[in-house]
Amino acid sequence: MRQIWVINPNTTEAMTAGIERCARAVVAPGTVVTGITSEIGPASIESHYDEALAVPGVLRAISRGERAGVDGYVIACFGDPGLDAAREAARGPVIGIAEAAMQAASHLGRGFSVVTTLTRTMGRAEDLANHYGMQRFCRGVHACDVPVLDLDTDSRKIVTEACREAVECDGSDVVVLGCAGMASMCTSISEELGVPVVDGVTAATLSVQSLIAMGLRTSKRGEFAAPPPKDYRTGR
Amino acid sequence: MRQIWVINPNTTEAMTAGIERCARAVVAPGTVVTGITSEIGPASIESHYDEALAVPGVLRAISRGERAGVDGYVIACFGDPGLDAAREAARGPVIGIAEAAMQAASHLGRGFSVVTTLTRTMGRAEDLANHYGMQRFCRGVHACDVPVLDLDTDSRKIVTEACREAVECDGSDVVVLGCAGMASMCTSISEELGVPVVDGVTAATLSVQSLIAMGLRTSKRGEFAAPPPKDYRTGR
Amino acid sequence: MRQIWVINPNTTEAMTAGIERCARAVVAPGTVVTGITSEIGPASIESHYDEALAVPGVLRAISRGERAGVDGYVIACFGDPGLDAAREAARGPVIGIAEAAMQAASHLGRGFSVVTTLTRTMGRAEDLANHYGMQRFCRGVHACDVPVLDLDTDSRKIVTEACREAVECDGSDVVVLGCAGMASMCTSISEELGVPVVDGVTAATLSVQSLIAMGLRTSKRGEFAAPPPKDYRTGR
Amino acid sequence: MRQIWVINPNTTEAMTAGIERCARAVVAPGTVVTGITSEIGPASIESHYDEALAVPGVLRAISRGERAGVDGYVIACFGDPGLDAAREAARGPVIGIAEAAMQAASHLGRGFSVVTTLTRTMGRAEDLANHYGMQRFCRGVHACDVPVLDLDTDSRKIVTEACREAVECDGSDVVVLGCAGMASMCTSISEELGVPVVDGVTAATLSVQSLIAMGLRTSKRGEFAAPPPKDYRTGR
Amino acid sequence: MRQIWVINPNTTEAMTAGIERCARAVVAPGTVVTGITSEIGPASIESHYDEALAVPGVLRAISRGERAGVDGYVIACFGDPGLDAAREAARGPVIGIAEAAMQAASHLGRGFSVVTTLTRTMGRAEDLANHYGMQRFCRGVHACDVPVLDLDTDSRKIVTEACREAVECDGSDVVVLGCAGMASMCTSISEELGVPVVDGVTAATLSVQSLIAMGLRTSKRGEFAAPPPKDYRTGR
Amino acid sequence: MRQIWVINPNTTEAMTAGIERCARAVVAPGTVVTGITSEIGPASIESHYDEALAVPGVLRAISRGERAGVDGYVIACFGDPGLDAAREAARGPVIGIAEAAMQAASHLGRGFSVVTTLTRTMGRAEDLANHYGMQRFCRGVHACDVPVLDLDTDSRKIVTEACREAVECDGSDVVVLGCAGMASMCTSISEELGVPVVDGVTAATLSVQSLIAMGLRTSKRGEFAAPPPKDYRTGR
Repeated sequence: MRQIWVINPNTTEAMTAGIERCARAVVAPGTVVTGITSEIGPASIESHYDEALAVPGVLRAISRGERAGVDGYVIACFGDPGLDAAREAARGPVIGIAEAAMQAASHLGRGFSVVTTLTRTMGRAEDLANHYGMQRFCRGVHACDVPVLDLDTDSRKIVTEACREAVECDGSDVVVLGCAGMASMCTSISEELGVPVVDGVTAATLSVQSLIAMGLRTSKRGEFAAPPPKDYRTGR
Repeated sequence: MRQIWVINPNTTEAMTAGIERCARAVVAPGTVVTGITSEIGPASIESHYDEALAVPGVLRAISRGERAGVDGYVIACFGDPGLDAAREAARGPVIGIAEAAMQAASHLGRGFSVVTTLTRTMGRAEDLANHYGMQRFCRGVHACDVPVLDLDTDSRKIVTEACREAVECDGSDVVVLGCAGMASMCTSISEELGVPVVDGVTAATLSVQSLIAMGLRTSKRGEFAAPPPKDYRTGR
Repeated sequence: MRQIWVINPNTTEAMTAGIERCARAVVAPGTVVTGITSEIGPASIESHYDEALAVPGVLRAISRGERAGVDGYVIACFGDPGLDAAREAARGPVIGIAEAAMQAASHLGRGFSVVTTLTRTMGRAEDLANHYGMQRFCRGVHACDVPVLDLDTDSRKIVTEACREAVECDGSDVVVLGCAGMASMCTSISEELGVPVVDGVTAATLSVQSLIAMGLRTSKRGEFAAPPPKDYRTGR
Repeated sequence: MRQIWVINPNTTEAMTAGIERCARAVVAPGTVVTGITSEIGPASIESHYDEALAVPGVLRAISRGERAGVDGYVIACFGDPGLDAAREAARGPVIGIAEAAMQAASHLGRGFSVVTTLTRTMGRAEDLANHYGMQRFCRGVHACDVPVLDLDTDSRKIVTEACREAVECDGSDVVVLGCAGMASMCTSISEELGVPVVDGVTAATLSVQSLIAMGLRTSKRGEFAAPPPKDYRTGR
Repeated sequence: MRQIWVINPNTTEAMTAGIERCARAVVAPGTVVTGITSEIGPASIESHYDEALAVPGVLRAISRGERAGVDGYVIACFGDPGLDAAREAARGPVIGIAEAAMQAASHLGRGFSVVTTLTRTMGRAEDLANHYGMQRFCRGVHACDVPVLDLDTDSRKIVTEACREAVECDGSDVVVLGCAGMASMCTSISEELGVPVVDGVTAATLSVQSLIAMGLRTSKRGEFAAPPPKDYRTGR
Repeated sequence: MRQIWVINPNTTEAMTAGIERCARAVVAPGTVVTGITSEIGPASIESHYDEALAVPGVLRAISRGERAGVDGYVIACFGDPGLDAAREAARGPVIGIAEAAMQAASHLGRGFSVVTTLTRTMGRAEDLANHYGMQRFCRGVHACDVPVLDLDTDSRKIVTEACREAVECDGSDVVVLGCAGMASMCTSISEELGVPVVDGVTAATLSVQSLIAMGLRTSKRGEFAAPPPKDYRTGR
């Protein structure tokens, strides 16, 4: 039995439910996926500011998971908030959905286009592509300008069109969905466009599952050793 | 039932058996792994020349696999020989062990060291690290100078020492094994050094398993469409 | 009158006092520097975990500053924690001490060495050098392994020796101090080694002063516009 | 009293006067700015050829400055001509307007567009962006095709329109003016476009002022030590 | 007498004749150029698959050349197939037409556009530009969508138009022809467009001639030493 | 008859004679090489300052060459001084010895080491390696600390030892000589070390000869068009 927690870094429980559903649909027998809603932070993450304030909730969820003996974690927001800190805090592997999606996409074609939510989040996706060494593969980042919490059946058409335009514009042959809230649209967009579409929630969950199967955990030799104990002053 | 073929690009069947064993040990129920020995080419791959002559055998194996309805492929040599061509030829996903190992390692620490066989193969590993965008993670490539076909229980100590020196020299916190023939040494080296050690055979097999679980295949929109039919002149 | 807040992202007031003293020593007449101690978070920042938990305190300080009409901000920790989020939240310019120090150093020689505190923080400094485009200038990152809160007159000799070794090892001709707590050692190390030594606290304060003098503020056209209002759930 | 010489590398005195005026408007009390017109070289710099022939005049001005006890220098042409040589020749800091402008702009947004004069000078701006590590920030270089000596009140509209198009085309949020002759247009363009516009003359002057305030000079440890004495043959 | 073999990696003899003619037209007295048609492999190379299957024929040609005392080799296909392996196998220098063309073009302008045959081959050209460090010079890769074996007098107009559009689109000032089959069009396209047009066949032949004139051969110190002898299993 | 001028950017005629001798030894029948000593500037180039003051002499030589109908030029100093300006001024091709040497070396092995004269010139060689895209090939830059004008038979041993150490230290398999004054040592160093040693003077001369043979000249479409006419003020 492998326990994987898929942490939704925002506080919107409906979104966690959707994420959990997608992740559960792909894991192997013997892998138990639990969606975890962050207890503190913003209702959705659409700015660096939101992301910064979401991180403590992610770390608190990791803490709970460690006490519960969780084997691995997914951070289910395309900004991969708190990833390095989470790796220090957890014994098992931790993977962000942006890194997992981009790596999966890199196996499937010459290059991918990322389609994210608001225009203002494009820069973060570009930074992550650079940080993960995906510059050669990431041929463009695009926005559909649907806010995270408006991603639903009605907006699927808008997202699909944004994906179609991205592929044309970039001359890419794969799409990466740039928000955990788009996970459920993955198959239908792929069918409509005729190119592979990668959702990071499933990609990251399976990557964690794979690392666990190989017995691999974050190295505790250096930078990602458990953080040194500290006095923390909490706000009033 | 998912059928994954793990293709050993050299013609040494004993090596295929070891590779198959390692891959089978990690897959999920429902995944069937078959080790495939290349029918044409060199007994081991230790030069660009060997690698070039191994590729037609890899492609022939892919052809057979396509007729047999195989769902995905691993190319089990750290030079990832013939990867792009194989992606054109196959419907399902194809992953090389170098790309899979480096990507897995990138989740586990600040940076990894690659330990390969002969000194003359170091350059290929460096080229691949660049090609896959892993420069930031790959802190060094090292050789243990054990020929591929001499990798066995006796040489494990030499490989282990090369890994230890690599980690010290590079200030890295993860090791990537740079030859499919080292797959079975993975756990013991990790235990001895106290850092995660990544074997590409298992990493690639699980990555293919994951892509299949997500329903993802190589994009046929552009560069990796089936190759155009051609007249081929075969040698005398 | 220009009001600049130099925010110490940790909660140790003695350190803020030292930082404030250094910044005040270099500003122009008409510039008022106020050292601000973060109200929430860790006593010192020596891990990604500490840094993540320090960011909300930085943002709370920015909020207070905005209400007080502050003209610009320095984030006085070498990890530049929360920089992008702070730029969204503030009207005036915000600069981190790592970016300011590296840029200043880039004018002074062929390349600089960074000397930071604990070995585990070296990776963050490397990431920032990449993020700011300073790879060509940053010839090495080194640690003196003195914890942040132990940086005082007694440890100056250790830091100085680490700087000397860094310069030799890297063939560099400039030193960048990798912790706000080293600010007061700047002159004496420079005198002992005979090379320019850059402290980010003063560099960033003067860079903010310069941007204010030029009437320049963070662009609100796109990514760094004020963050969209959100429901935030606060922890129990 | 800090003496900063702002060297105009071309021989057009009217342009020096404009540059001096802009620089004086932003410096702190105690900083004395003197505009220096190069005594030898071309009337304006619009080619690599012009730039090459302007450098001896820049170096002669540095020589005079050293005898006069000048504390720091600005090279006020967007090609930063002779920068490395000037650093060898001067004791105090020397900064080019391209490097200063790009660094200032990097603090203000996701990315900047450079607007230069003639199309043929775009390549030099791209080279400098690479050389200074500003590739991630520099999202495009554009030309307004107004010759340097025609930059005046009448041409401001053309420059403004070029800036507007650059920002649209690049999806940038900051403008960098690519010629010292545009310095006086800075504020009005910013007001019209609603984004920060950075002029390198003021940016560089303030950067030099900052380095002087911190007591920082070019490192004389290695590459930028005083040039070895030489026999120089002068032309007939 | 210097013997240079220009190897056509496909099996189409008419194409070899054209290549040989172009190469002979530019060499110095004392250089003897022989066009060699590969004995095994595809009739033309328009995919990674074709390229992979062409490499053994290239290596067989090198083997024959070594026995014949050939002084140097050109690989006359823009994918530079088998280049590293050929360098191991040959004593004299081996150069690919892509590397030679890109390097020659880098001396002639700010940046070049590559015009290749089928769209699906664009990715390979991009990979090679990266591999050879030509990113700064290569401003775009374009396809004319004429199959290799249809390149003849009739298609010259299509290729010329593709070149014209490429130069406009990329703002480049040099064209690199992306197929050995375009060699004979070089002069006429240059005359029509008024920019230098580089053909790799002549560029590579002259580069090999130059290396021979300097007495330079592939280093046998490390990676490119003669490949270790191996058992090779040949197909049935 | 092709006329190539090999311009020595310093004013030391004995050095020009040596350069001319090396270049003449490798060119084809029909190529006439003339060594040209710069009429103005420093006796040797060992700093950015020297280099800057050498450029006007290079450009004056180009001017004379244009009037004399010269077909192409080599700039025979490893800093490639004035290269871009010379390309604007000349009709035929112009090549620097650093770019030619590095490109030639890139065909011969995994990577090269540069051995230059004084330590202070190493940075310039690194900058050029970056500028020409040779980072992957250039594995290190080293100094022998022999001044340019002391390079003679007696110093050959010192240079040879520096080359030997460079190759060991970098794990490289090719040497690039970093000064035109080392040209005559090329063969003997190669024989002693057993690796290819590339001299830029011969490499550049043959590259120019090749471009002329192909009918290729610097593009006059954009950046390298003839410089616009200007008023030039000459010094008193």
